Amino acid sequence: MNDAREVVVLRYGHRPGRDDRMTTHVGLTARALGADRVVFPDNAGQSAETVRDITDRFGGPFGVELRDDQTAIVRNWEGTVAHLTMYGERVQDVEGDVREAVAGGGDLLVVVGGEKVPWELYERADFNVGVTNQPHSEVAGLAVFLDRLFEGAELDREWEDADRRVMPEATGKTVVDAGDDGSEPGDGGPTTADRD
Amino acid sequence: MNDAREVVVLRYGHRPGRDDRMTTHVGLTARALGADRVVFPDNAGQSAETVRDITDRFGGPFGVELRDDQTAIVRNWEGTVAHLTMYGERVQDVEGDVREAVAGGGDLLVVVGGEKVPWELYERADFNVGVTNQPHSEVAGLAVFLDRLFEGAELDREWEDADRRVMPEATGKTVVDAGDDGSEPGDGGPTTADRD
Repeated sequence: MNDAREVVVLRYGHRPGRDDRMTTHVGLTARALGADRVVFPDNAGQSAETVRDITDRFGGPFGVELRDDQTAIVRNWEGTVAHLTMYGERVQDVEGDVREAVAGGGDLLVVVGGEKVPWELYERADFNVGVTNQPHSEVAGLAVFLDRLFEGAELDREWEDADRRVMPEATGKTVVDAGDDGSEPGDGGPTTADRD
Repeated sequence: MNDAREVVVLRYGHRPGRDDRMTTHVGLTARALGADRVVFPDNAGQSAETVRDITDRFGGPFGVELRDDQTAIVRNWEGTVAHLTMYGERVQDVEGDVREAVAGGGDLLVVVGGEKVPWELYERADFNVGVTNQPHSEVAGLAVFLDRLFEGAELDREWEDADRRVMPEATGKTVVDAGDDGSEPGDGGPTTADRD
């Protein structure tokens, strides 16, 4: 989401069936919270399809890639690597350093483990980062990390080429055609979702 | 985590099998990021067991409850209700209001939808809150909401009655017996996890 650099989320490992929803949620969270692209293992085609479908409907730009060489991607990354792990340094201690490392326009690879991550990756990472040192959820860790990395700016992102847009409101479920601000309902104007 | 009030996360809806991991991650995220208690639907016993097990090993206090009357819990909640939904007001706009609403020592119920949430709940909620108005993950939404609610203070939480503690470090996977600061390894001292 930052002009000066690319932020890519790499999902390390995926067990088809068992991990489908978690991997999909990693991808959707990466998109919603300001990353430019997600890289899934090549056996996560179903998750990739879901994330692409959401991008088609709710906008981008956001890239989704399937790759079979995840360890090599990390090893050969020309830029900064931040690996999210409960064993890492505290996010509140290192988030400023991560921002500084990419401030000059460098690219950032954020590695989110699913299956067991090889020790080589801990060593290659410029930052092993713990969003708490407690066991919880890679999706939660990614979300907090991105929100802190971008210091909340990702929440104000504008989406391009969206078909639809949700109108934030105190009580309601309103979706409008993108480009329509909802003030003058008409063809393709605001629709209120079912309220049963 | 705040002395003056209780923050409870209610997981609305659960489909055994399909939702087990998501519900577990909601519970673990609630615990790791500063809530006092999680309430699961009564058919989510497996997720409850996992979260209790983590609490036994990594510390608390953190409560896990199974209840069959989720709609009634929300309806009868004596305190503030914040419902996380992509249709809600922007978290960056209302987080201060939520903090203010509970500042006097009120209790906060944070509702996290799984299955379709009834319209009644949108109306009962004091705040319908969107962590972005994009479709992503209830776990990610909960994580960002709690981190913002507590303004990061939850990351410094101390855990009681823990059997083990992870030592934050730049490169390593070190777990120590709780109470042991890791400086003098001995029986039950630091152990380094396998590095294969």
